[in-house]
Amino acid sequence: MSDTETLYAQFLARMAEMSYLASAAAALDWDMETCMPEGGAEARGKVVGYLAGAAHDKAVSPEFEDVLSRLKEEADRGNLDALRSAIVGRAWKSLEREKKLPGDLVREMADLCSASHHVWVQAKETADFRLFLPNLTRIIALKRQEAGLIGGGNSPYDALLDAFEPGARTDTIDAVFRPLRIFLASFIQRLAGSAHVPDQAAARIPAPTELQARLVRLAAGAIGFDFKAGRLDTSAHPFTCKFHPGDVRITTRYDEKNFVDALTSVIHESGHGLYDQGLPAEHFGTAAGEACSYGIHESQSRLWENLVGRGRPFWEFLLPKLQAAGLAAGVEPDAFYRSLNLVRPSFIRVEADEVTYSLHVCLRFDIERELIEGRLEAADLPAAWNAKMSDYLGVVVPDDARGVLQDVHWSGGLFGYFPSYALGNLYASQLFETAKRELPGLEDGFRRGEFRPLREWLADKVWRHGAVLTPAEIVSRATGSPPDPAHFIAYIEKKYGEIYRI
Amino acid sequence: MSDTETLYAQFLARMAEMSYLASAAAALDWDMETCMPEGGAEARGKVVGYLAGAAHDKAVSPEFEDVLSRLKEEADRGNLDALRSAIVGRAWKSLEREKKLPGDLVREMADLCSASHHVWVQAKETADFRLFLPNLTRIIALKRQEAGLIGGGNSPYDALLDAFEPGARTDTIDAVFRPLRIFLASFIQRLAGSAHVPDQAAARIPAPTELQARLVRLAAGAIGFDFKAGRLDTSAHPFTCKFHPGDVRITTRYDEKNFVDALTSVIHESGHGLYDQGLPAEHFGTAAGEACSYGIHESQSRLWENLVGRGRPFWEFLLPKLQAAGLAAGVEPDAFYRSLNLVRPSFIRVEADEVTYSLHVCLRFDIERELIEGRLEAADLPAAWNAKMSDYLGVVVPDDARGVLQDVHWSGGLFGYFPSYALGNLYASQLFETAKRELPGLEDGFRRGEFRPLREWLADKVWRHGAVLTPAEIVSRATGSPPDPAHFIAYIEKKYGEIYRI
Repeated sequence: MSDTETLYAQFLARMAEMSYLASAAAALDWDMETCMPEGGAEARGKVVGYLAGAAHDKAVSPEFEDVLSRLKEEADRGNLDALRSAIVGRAWKSLEREKKLPGDLVREMADLCSASHHVWVQAKETADFRLFLPNLTRIIALKRQEAGLIGGGNSPYDALLDAFEPGARTDTIDAVFRPLRIFLASFIQRLAGSAHVPDQAAARIPAPTELQARLVRLAAGAIGFDFKAGRLDTSAHPFTCKFHPGDVRITTRYDEKNFVDALTSVIHESGHGLYDQGLPAEHFGTAAGEACSYGIHESQSRLWENLVGRGRPFWEFLLPKLQAAGLAAGVEPDAFYRSLNLVRPSFIRVEADEVTYSLHVCLRFDIERELIEGRLEAADLPAAWNAKMSDYLGVVVPDDARGVLQDVHWSGGLFGYFPSYALGNLYASQLFETAKRELPGLEDGFRRGEFRPLREWLADKVWRHGAVLTPAEIVSRATGSPPDPAHFIAYIEKKYGEIYRI
Repeated sequence: MSDTETLYAQFLARMAEMSYLASAAAALDWDMETCMPEGGAEARGKVVGYLAGAAHDKAVSPEFEDVLSRLKEEADRGNLDALRSAIVGRAWKSLEREKKLPGDLVREMADLCSASHHVWVQAKETADFRLFLPNLTRIIALKRQEAGLIGGGNSPYDALLDAFEPGARTDTIDAVFRPLRIFLASFIQRLAGSAHVPDQAAARIPAPTELQARLVRLAAGAIGFDFKAGRLDTSAHPFTCKFHPGDVRITTRYDEKNFVDALTSVIHESGHGLYDQGLPAEHFGTAAGEACSYGIHESQSRLWENLVGRGRPFWEFLLPKLQAAGLAAGVEPDAFYRSLNLVRPSFIRVEADEVTYSLHVCLRFDIERELIEGRLEAADLPAAWNAKMSDYLGVVVPDDARGVLQDVHWSGGLFGYFPSYALGNLYASQLFETAKRELPGLEDGFRRGEFRPLREWLADKVWRHGAVLTPAEIVSRATGSPPDPAHFIAYIEKKYGEIYRI
């Protein structure tokens, strides 16, 4: 082997070790949220914290930095092919970020987040924000410290955004979200004034948990989630967790009064799962085998959940299957479709319809930014949250369980993550519009349960690239134009204009 | 802090890190056998192998050796209290063992065993030993290498035994097992000649899996397994896995034709689980928080499974509960008890009755010894197995799934483990005999579902000592005399003499 080859092999071996630690940590996280008895929480926190610290130590070790910096020079001299150069470039960027974070901070954050999960669960169960406040206060303090240490950008929040959406800036997101929020807030007023508001009841199908579990499994399998390379379990908050492209775990929860809740959440998580299962396993552990960004990840879940899973063609396929299982007897397809797409401002983000959803995200973006910029303190969160809910969505939050405590993210230290959800909506519309144009008869196929053409298109345009391209490059190459919220706005106007006849 | 205190704190911190790696590995093992989809196997093997290697590297690192050897000197000079001295002594013994094993060997073994699990499952499913042969051949080669590197004793098998039963020697186990085997082989002949063989059918209670799952959970809870510090799941081979005393996982499997199969396996695993949950959490990560030995561990599971769970008093408590759940209608308690204790030579160790069980273990002891001593090769295993089954138990093995492939242990590299099962039987009888003597009315309490007195007795005599005492010390202190198979033999002769009226 040439020196460069030897160096690259050393780099891959070290990357593999870090990926093993990350894979173990992912498995422990999954277990924590699906299986672990409460007696395991304290020790688990220490184990997860230790693994996170070990991964960080490895990532910033002088040995790794030496190998990586020599490879970076080779890349800069043009001695690596494009793929390797991109892999090394991405690793270099991560190293520069990681080096700024002391191991003690990383370890404290991991310990704290692990311990905070159960505290958040309890606080949410009892709708008691004060229970969670001490943990949240410390988490925010550490995130501010992290943002300060990483630096760069006009706002300290930039440093946190960049971890989820490479290249995203507080300013540019604000420039997209502000008009989006204004459009959506005014659009929901127009919908509310329509004389053709769908009937809420038509899509509310009660079903026992076990039957729901069987049917959501059927739906996930139909769109292509591979159960030989994954599982579907139950947790308080639905999520997707990748240990490896060959082992991707999705979760949901069941409401016996409302089957569609579990169904849409499973289609959503399956969208994440398809992406994770579709990442190139041969590049596992490097940027070429990782997801591009959280926004692109969310574009996949939202595309399947909304563009496919809340469309007429999908339900022409699925509704007869539910009816064959004894559910939704006599439900009329058009009323069902309209009901499924009822727009109603509500308290809970994950239960929100397609139109109001992004308003929930705009709220979180504003609040996180203020928290990290030091303009808002944890103790004042409930008041700030409730005021914005009233302002953006026009709803009065009845308690903190249905307000500031609703999401798991902050207990896990995930600040800067939420904007990905709205970016995902925007990317998803743009991608799906292109897929429909390039694949004539795509939606007719859905009616017959044929989802393979869409999967293959996404695999080619998105999945196979791993994180070698930036989010903007993925979207631009796939659709022929840079990311633009106009596609999402046009989609919303057309779809909901028809349903509400406005 | 004094120098000694500082040194001891450093030692504890390093021990804690190793315990975190072990806890993570345990969680991944559990997941592998209860949850993991097949697509995850290959990557999981690498992750588990990496963690095992990392734990080994840490255990034999010069830094740890330096701290430990200085502490060992302090202990030898009498500068540590008895507990610390025992903890340090046990760690020192482990280090001396680990140092003899190169990291590459440890890593290869972990990788190989992880990859071999699925191969073994497949081979067992198709009763095709040849599928498993290449993996098993390599595993045996590595175990021979390990035994040779560790050395000591009269037989290389001693080195493997010592990992499971500290101080056990091939010679001394042979000296116990040989007469035990002769007694049991002759005793089952006497039972076979009885005119009062129990009716096999009376204890065969069919039940749907879900009902079984509910009832075994009830039984485990009744004897004291704490579901806030543990779980019960399904796997191909029942096992217990401790991540921490606060998170102990037990598993079983269900046969819809025979509820008692799952029930007895759950009582068995709950016995392990009670011990693991009862270990002193404050000493987690040191010998004072670990189980004493595999033989002592097995004494706990066998005590609950057989001495309690196959006794009349336990079933006077449980049978009415089954009947209330709609099972075992009209089953007569005495016929049930006799049927539950039917002695019949069979193929499968884990399904064997109390009398023939130890014969299965004697067979594995003989075979493992020959394999490790180089007098038997993997390819000749089926023939050797089948010959001994005929010799010891008088049965003709119909296929390798019900023969040499039946147990998971060898696919996991566990050689030297099996003798613990028979040692556990011996210890269990001796302990239970003492408990009954010291706690008048103990078995009357069982009839009323009162198992706390036995748990408290075991906690005091066994659990709280962790691995600070040797197996022989635990038994001697608890019972007033050293381990002696005569207690087991007397118990078997009395119980089965009555049932079979011989």
